[in-house]
Order: sequence, then C-alpha cells, then structure tokens
Amino acid sequence: MKKKGLLIVISGPSGAGKGTVCKEYLKNNPETILSVSMTTRQPRRGEVDGVNYFFTDVATFERMIDEGGFLEHAKVYGNYYGTPKSFVKENLLAGRDVILEIDIQGALQVKEKFDEGVFIFIVPPTMEELKRRIQRRGTETPEELLRRFKSAYEEINFITRYNYLVINDSVKEAAKKIEAIVVAEKCRVDRNSDFYTNLQGGIDNAISIHR
Amino acid sequence: MKKKGLLIVISGPSGAGKGTVCKEYLKNNPETILSVSMTTRQPRRGEVDGVNYFFTDVATFERMIDEGGFLEHAKVYGNYYGTPKSFVKENLLAGRDVILEIDIQGALQVKEKFDEGVFIFIVPPTMEELKRRIQRRGTETPEELLRRFKSAYEEINFITRYNYLVINDSVKEAAKKIEAIVVAEKCRVDRNSDFYTNLQGGIDNAISIHR
Repeated sequence: MKKKGLLIVISGPSGAGKGTVCKEYLKNNPETILSVSMTTRQPRRGEVDGVNYFFTDVATFERMIDEGGFLEHAKVYGNYYGTPKSFVKENLLAGRDVILEIDIQGALQVKEKFDEGVFIFIVPPTMEELKRRIQRRGTETPEELLRRFKSAYEEINFITRYNYLVINDSVKEAAKKIEAIVVAEKCRVDRNSDFYTNLQGGIDNAISIHR
Repeated sequence: MKKKGLLIVISGPSGAGKGTVCKEYLKNNPETILSVSMTTRQPRRGEVDGVNYFFTDVATFERMIDEGGFLEHAKVYGNYYGTPKSFVKENLLAGRDVILEIDIQGALQVKEKFDEGVFIFIVPPTMEELKRRIQRRGTETPEELLRRFKSAYEEINFITRYNYLVINDSVKEAAKKIEAIVVAEKCRVDRNSDFYTNLQGGIDNAISIHR
C-alpha cells in the first residue's frame, strides 16, 4: 500500500515571511505539491487557472461550501477564497506531500477538519523585526501599521494550537527546519501503524522457517 | 536563559542495530553526550570509570535506588546496571543533548520518570532481517535463537509507547532520521513556551516605539 503524503500547513502572522519560506522549501523539494486556492475574483493578467488559482463563479463556490468541499474558506473584500478539499486529498492519497501557505484564521479552520496535518507557525526572530518587515513594504499608513502590529500580537496567542514553531531569522535555515519536521513526522509511530502491524505478521514466518 | 538539552532515548529489540546507529549519530553530532551507565560489576580490562561505566559497589547502588537516583535500573546475572539521573539532568540543564541507548524495559522505566524525553524505536526493515542479524552473531543455540525471536515479537508491541519509529535499513539513513527528529523536536511548540512569551512581551515595545 502506498504511504499517504503529509499536509504541511505553513502559517503565521503577516510579515513573518511565510511565502518566502514556502518558496525555498518547494525549490529544494520539487516533488511537494503547493495547494492551489479557489477564488471567485477575476483572474489578473498572466494568472493561469489551476496554477495561481482555480477560478470559479459565486454560485459554484457557494454550492461547494454547502457540500463541505473546502478545508477552509473566507470572504475578503467581496471575493471568496478557499482551499478545495478534493485537490488536497487526492494528492495526499497518491502519496504526495501538499504544502499549504495560509493565514492563521484559515489554518485554524483546516485544523478542525484535518487534524493529521502538520501545523507550523512561522515567526520573525523578534517583534521589532516583524515591525521592520511590515514597514519595509512601505504601503501602509501609520494607523494601518499599528492595526497590523496589534493584529500580529493577538495572533501570536494561537501558537499553542500549532505543532511547531519555526523562527524565520534565515529563510534557508527555516526551510531546512521544515524539511527536518517533515522527515520526523513521517517517522511518528502513529503514522506508521501499517508498518509495525506487518512487522509483527512477519515474525510468524520467521519462526516457522527457522523451525 | 540557556535552552535545555534534549534526552534522546534510542531503543528497540536486540538485533535492531541500536548501538551502530547511536555511534553513527555521535560521530556526526560530537557535542551530544552519551549517557554513561552505573554498574556493580567488576571493570573489564581497558574499561575506564566514568567513560564506559561508573563503577560502584552494591551498597552505594542500592542506596541510590532508595533515593530515586536512577532513571532506570535492572539486575542482570547478579549485577546491577542503571542510568544515574544526576548525570543526565546536569547535562540537559547545561543545554547539552544526551543520548541513551537502552533496551525496551529500560526505556519504559525512563518514560515513566522523564516523559519529556524523545523515545525512538529502532526496527530492522523486516523480521527476516532481524533473524539474519541475530543469527549472524553466531553465538546462540537454536533454542536461544527461537527465544530471542519470540522476545522480539513481544517487544514490538511496545512500539506504541514510543514517539518515533526509525527503520534501520541503512545505518547512515537511520542516523540522519534521528538528526531530523532532534531538529523537529526542538521546534515543537510545547518546548518553546519561553520564546513566544518573550515575543509577546516585545510587541509592547514595538508599539510604543512606533507611536
């Protein structure tokens, strides 16, 4: 039986560097599948259906919500965004790891529906650094900046709902830590019940051959 | 505050290759401390006190048992063997990882006293391979061999008490998996409560500086 893949959920406050860390991980692990979100917003120039997003209409999206077709979904500025359950599950069943880069509200929704995922919280080394990273983007007003800090502060309370904390002081090191986490998770006893059941079956043969 | 080291417990049935895997791990991670057992048996030629074992007398050993001075202990062929708690705890407090290679009965005793250790069960790829490895040693009678298989069979039931299962089909790969497990465990949220408490403290500064 083919071993199931792992759902790797990369989350954390905005400004933590989730996206960069994911890209670095995918560069070193090209067999891992990046989860593609579904959205009702219009495609932008150059965006490809099934690559950047699955583009769909509101009626289809809402029917999928009713049918429980999303691991998580949200409405942002009037557009729906969500993670289709089937895309993730089909890849996992085929033995492929799936990585999902997502904000904290989304990750908590996924955790309720798919607790066997690996939930990784990315944080900046200090809140000062997070502040610098948010400021560096240079697009926010002082009020908007303050709102985002406060939001990051509240979000940090959710760390305890995650399995792992990865400090993003170096993108390369953070991606390596995620690689170690994936190797380790695949060794967890509760993910290997098939193997040790088979191993026990093997002893009967070993004993009878020996006799 | 210095971060505590990790207690890495390497266990599994005899013939699984615990010793070889530990040696390989220590070769690549020379800063990790190998736990030294205490025993009441006589030193053999070339054995050094504090390196191979801590050698002691029965009265001292039994007093230490009464005082709860061992993480685990056992009497084998009339001699005591045990893992002194103080040696392990002092190294962990100094921030050094400690590796403990131990049979299954011993590991289960350690788990009762020190649940925050990382418990790794080493298995051969198949029971057939375990059989070959036990036979290759060439010292056992057929009856003794059969007894050891049956014992290995019973011991495999204890896998569920461990955190990780590492298949020893290649010593190098098995040691690398243990390295990944150690990196991952150090990222576990429940081992990093100090860090995220500090991170939350930092936001107050970040906000006030910003204002």
